[in-house]
Amino acid sequence: MRVGILGGGQLARMLALAGYPLGLNFVVLDPGADVCAASVADQLQGAYDDESLLAELAAKVDIVSYEFENVPARAVELLADKVPVYPPRQALAMAQDRLNEKNLFRKLGIATPDFVAVNSLAELEQAMEQVGWPAVVKTRTQGYDGKGQAVLSQPEELAPAWQSLSGVPAIVEAFVPFEREVSIIAVRSTTGEMICYPLTENTHRDGVLRLSIARPDDPMQSQAEAYAERLMNELDYVGVLALELFQAGETLLANEFAPRVHNSGHWTQDGAETSQFENHLRAVLGLPLGATDAIGYTAMVNLIGAIPAVEDVLVNTHSHLHLYGKEPHPGRKVGHINLQAQSKQELEAELKLVLTLAGE
Amino acid sequence: MRVGILGGGQLARMLALAGYPLGLNFVVLDPGADVCAASVADQLQGAYDDESLLAELAAKVDIVSYEFENVPARAVELLADKVPVYPPRQALAMAQDRLNEKNLFRKLGIATPDFVAVNSLAELEQAMEQVGWPAVVKTRTQGYDGKGQAVLSQPEELAPAWQSLSGVPAIVEAFVPFEREVSIIAVRSTTGEMICYPLTENTHRDGVLRLSIARPDDPMQSQAEAYAERLMNELDYVGVLALELFQAGETLLANEFAPRVHNSGHWTQDGAETSQFENHLRAVLGLPLGATDAIGYTAMVNLIGAIPAVEDVLVNTHSHLHLYGKEPHPGRKVGHINLQAQSKQELEAELKLVLTLAGE
Repeated sequence: MRVGILGGGQLARMLALAGYPLGLNFVVLDPGADVCAASVADQLQGAYDDESLLAELAAKVDIVSYEFENVPARAVELLADKVPVYPPRQALAMAQDRLNEKNLFRKLGIATPDFVAVNSLAELEQAMEQVGWPAVVKTRTQGYDGKGQAVLSQPEELAPAWQSLSGVPAIVEAFVPFEREVSIIAVRSTTGEMICYPLTENTHRDGVLRLSIARPDDPMQSQAEAYAERLMNELDYVGVLALELFQAGETLLANEFAPRVHNSGHWTQDGAETSQFENHLRAVLGLPLGATDAIGYTAMVNLIGAIPAVEDVLVNTHSHLHLYGKEPHPGRKVGHINLQAQSKQELEAELKLVLTLAGE
Repeated sequence: MRVGILGGGQLARMLALAGYPLGLNFVVLDPGADVCAASVADQLQGAYDDESLLAELAAKVDIVSYEFENVPARAVELLADKVPVYPPRQALAMAQDRLNEKNLFRKLGIATPDFVAVNSLAELEQAMEQVGWPAVVKTRTQGYDGKGQAVLSQPEELAPAWQSLSGVPAIVEAFVPFEREVSIIAVRSTTGEMICYPLTENTHRDGVLRLSIARPDDPMQSQAEAYAERLMNELDYVGVLALELFQAGETLLANEFAPRVHNSGHWTQDGAETSQFENHLRAVLGLPLGATDAIGYTAMVNLIGAIPAVEDVLVNTHSHLHLYGKEPHPGRKVGHINLQAQSKQELEAELKLVLTLAGE
């Protein structure tokens, strides 16, 4: 079986590495010249909406998936005429538009921070009366890693914030005083089989994920699973889905979902019996899903902008390094370190060391 | 860093898959046209003793290793003039000749079955008086997976056995009534750091490994580790080494060692914190070695000659499939299944299912 992936970055690379043992081969489509998945997959180089390349991809593979959610809808349409494309396009459409996404959450009884759609500065000013201060204004489309959003703390910030987003359609959300950010990595296969990983607790820096800690037996697990299940059933979802949540009191509030393998699930490579990458492939191929149990105490630290000396990382015998084969640039995710431990205390001690190495 | 590997089979493939996350890239040298490592590594196609290809390989990589022990000594010599080659050639020389190997065991105080070198039928007849019946006669070189050997149960078998081995220099060994076959997978790095995996209990069929079960806390662990340590220190060894042993009473008798990653260590991919493949790469690169602890109860079943339907394998959520991308032929190793379990009983139940799938 040959699997096509739109995008040739680290997620495609890690999907391919997880897929060879299942007997799969990979073709990625990416406009980039030196994409990091190309070491372990064939690459078609060109634009995501290049019709002849998309036809070539469809002819070469049995199934297509993608590693980022801003895939042009037209590309998915063209491909889907010829080969199965998972996750399904309705999931992509929802994830590409924060307003549709939030409306879907609301419809499914998945709690969210209060939100209002805004299409002008005047609407934004009016919306603030409903959502209250402080708030966050976010473009409806194209946002990722904290880009395309602005925090609003006082009235004078409204005009510059609106301008910074170039006046495109947006939503404004109440800024919820939350205790922690968590995500649930869930998988659903073409057969409808569904399974979740233990809840992950996430820490961001400047809008970019820095640190994930797996929390098996977390008291919020069942609420998160119920949300993910509702969402995946509604979308007739296939593949891995990551749902990002804020915890406020005993309630989880949905922030957004990603219709793909997700950075907050990278710990599963070493810390779970089956990685999110393998389970994504199993799901899109309709194969039985693998066990998602966590192994001991486990966490992930992102390497952003710089790669520490490999020997310094591995001197902790429970550190597992995952480099993406990318040149370091400021702010660029170039790898991550997964940690294993026998106890919470041991994990905390390891985390301290590794966060220092990672430049915290 | 670029790593060269002599041989492009499944061991090279699994080394490469384990090495990308460390930021490595791979070039394999193999005469074959459709070798299974070529999906995940560049290939130089040609003979192992092709001097210009060896020079090309040396120019392309920072270090060379190999996936089989019958590497021509001349190839290693040529390479070693230009790049580090690990495991070191003295280990290769020993592993390529059963007589040297057994003499080395004897010298290091590593118990072995009684053995005598034989160079003619007359010598074989004479040797039988020393080692006693039954016995096994094995060619000194080129044997693997039970090839190049014959069991001797009665005097009439001596002449045909000697003929079946084409009369090449051989050793005859006492056939020890052993309780079980085990192996110890050990790793030693360029820095001298050394670590072993939990003892593995192995079952062969027709001379080919069928099943390995990891035995953490085995009472024979320390004896096996002491043997491996003596051997690796003597050879100034670098990389993974597999030492195959028979247990007779409270004594382990060394059968042979392989200077490479080994089939009986494949369970470490899912069943140990760091796989033998990753630790081999760490060792040859002089990086700190990763933890070798077993995760729960774990075993490996080889797929030989046929690949069962993937969905039938994965329906057990604790089965982890490793296919090599090879066409099945009778007797050919085409993949393996690693099993995880929370208890001995669970592992036994899984093993029963998987052995049936694998054609037992």
